[in-house]
Amino acid sequence: MTQPPPPAEPGDEMLADMTEQAPVLRALVDRSGELQAALAQLEPPSAISLVARGTSLNAAIYGRYRLEIAAQVQASIVPPSLHTRYDVGTAMDGVLAIGLSQSGATPEIVDSLESMRSRGATTVAITNVAESPLAHGADVTVHLAAGHERAVPATKTFTAQLAAIDLIASHLANEPIDAAGWEQLITSVADHLSDDTAASAAARVAGNARSVVCLGRGLLYPIALEAALKIVETSQLPSSGYSSTEFLHGPIAQAGPTGVALCFADDNDLLDDTRVVARRLVEANMPVISIGPDPSLIPDATAHIPTRDATRNLSPILHIIRAQQFARALTLGLGLDPDHPAGLAKVTATH
Amino acid sequence: MTQPPPPAEPGDEMLADMTEQAPVLRALVDRSGELQAALAQLEPPSAISLVARGTSLNAAIYGRYRLEIAAQVQASIVPPSLHTRYDVGTAMDGVLAIGLSQSGATPEIVDSLESMRSRGATTVAITNVAESPLAHGADVTVHLAAGHERAVPATKTFTAQLAAIDLIASHLANEPIDAAGWEQLITSVADHLSDDTAASAAARVAGNARSVVCLGRGLLYPIALEAALKIVETSQLPSSGYSSTEFLHGPIAQAGPTGVALCFADDNDLLDDTRVVARRLVEANMPVISIGPDPSLIPDATAHIPTRDATRNLSPILHIIRAQQFARALTLGLGLDPDHPAGLAKVTATH
Repeated sequence: MTQPPPPAEPGDEMLADMTEQAPVLRALVDRSGELQAALAQLEPPSAISLVARGTSLNAAIYGRYRLEIAAQVQASIVPPSLHTRYDVGTAMDGVLAIGLSQSGATPEIVDSLESMRSRGATTVAITNVAESPLAHGADVTVHLAAGHERAVPATKTFTAQLAAIDLIASHLANEPIDAAGWEQLITSVADHLSDDTAASAAARVAGNARSVVCLGRGLLYPIALEAALKIVETSQLPSSGYSSTEFLHGPIAQAGPTGVALCFADDNDLLDDTRVVARRLVEANMPVISIGPDPSLIPDATAHIPTRDATRNLSPILHIIRAQQFARALTLGLGLDPDHPAGLAKVTATH
Repeated sequence: MTQPPPPAEPGDEMLADMTEQAPVLRALVDRSGELQAALAQLEPPSAISLVARGTSLNAAIYGRYRLEIAAQVQASIVPPSLHTRYDVGTAMDGVLAIGLSQSGATPEIVDSLESMRSRGATTVAITNVAESPLAHGADVTVHLAAGHERAVPATKTFTAQLAAIDLIASHLANEPIDAAGWEQLITSVADHLSDDTAASAAARVAGNARSVVCLGRGLLYPIALEAALKIVETSQLPSSGYSSTEFLHGPIAQAGPTGVALCFADDNDLLDDTRVVARRLVEANMPVISIGPDPSLIPDATAHIPTRDATRNLSPILHIIRAQQFARALTLGLGLDPDHPAGLAKVTATH
């Protein structure tokens, strides 16, 4: 496939990637029958291991929650160094090991999945490159088929990874794909991407910040991590994601007027600590931007970016799309190019 | 036990806590026979789950590496929300579940360990309060016996937690306690605490930084996390810990002259990426402070804080002591009180 000519303006490549998220998700869900058939050949797992780096790691952390809840077996994020440096001897018979890599070519992820397979694990590769080394070494491959990603910061491959995890979770829970939930979600994804007014306004609120914290709990915790990664990759501002609850155990000491916080909210009982944190941040004169279906969920927020209603498992896809828009707008406002951040490459070949 | 009268100067309480680390570690190691006898009553685990918050979570992450390597079974960090919010149905027969909490009173940690026990797990509490709710619900309790911790930022309880994990690891690996390694380590701990000259000099190098990143890999990754937590708790600067390898996958975009980096090094093959990162940070005019046994491990570093040689599993204790000294000196240099950070309490009652 030939690449399109370089677009004229900074941020155009990231925007083009982002805009493809609705069709990419639809195509993945349309192929879910094929995936379910492949997964049906595997034994029910006794445990689940996930291995990834960067944006893919944040999708894996979503999987660490979603897949344990679905399969009712222990899930774990595997540090690659256990396999590439410590030569760990863990027996993995019965374990479902899932490797996530957009390129399918990060050596330590390929090596870790291969190591787990050699110790007895059944392996699944989630990748955007069907003919990659990661896919080559896996029992089942979920090909994201998101197409060429133009900008260095990953966007459409991340939401596709979340979708892949969700489809695997439905299989492990012996539940049918939530076709109505997906239909509603994909419509909302397209809707969100057609309008970044609120995200741009929020980015102006954050325009003078020297650092950013992103906060959420449960399934919105990996979204906070991924939002922070998008922001540091594009804007070069120090930006960290935390569980809202964990944040109360120390990092909240940084609350003050030189930073800004993004708080991810859904209308459920995981909201409690996020709401508490937001109040304390605002009391410390730190602007708070809430992202969620209703501004009243974080009543103290300085600005709000709305999401449409979605099922609990899928709503994180809408939250991260809003954060992508925010990161892009913030970076353009700083006069930087979100498409080609200084010092970053599309594939990082760590071992 | 009555509390001592409040000391006169900011930082005295943290220093008093820190100074007790050698005797606290010695007392724990001296009682290791008792712990081994209690652990010998338990079945060999089929998996290991660790649950904690804050500083204790960083000790748990050290355990996530050390215990999987020792026991050769999958270890996992458990998000408390799985048990307190999602009501996860994971079967846990055969699992060794370890809860870590200095106070033994953080409700969500107590509840998560109890939930895992009710699902079949054997439970171990690692706590500084023998008569705490966490200890009450555990099959085996490791009482850290570190004594009253005066300052809000935890220091002596953290290194005691690392020691407790290491003693459990020796049991799970069917290996004797490394008495000679511990003897050497405790001597080095006392030595390090007797002289903070290098840490104070490094803190002056970092004195104008607006943010801090802490970097290490493998067993030094949780040390990077804990160093970052100590720094944000005391200095109120945004401060984040990363795996050196993960840092290359995006967060390195923040490299620049307004930040400072702490790089944790040991002389082994986990050093590679830390060395690569350090070079790139210095090239981006970001000062780098290395902490490890030899300044030549990070040849590009701007300043160095030396540690004595120690065995691979125990050296993280020396690295974090140097980081505690650095955090305290940095904070005093900023005119702040490291003992009583704004907005933090000794016990954070999250659910």
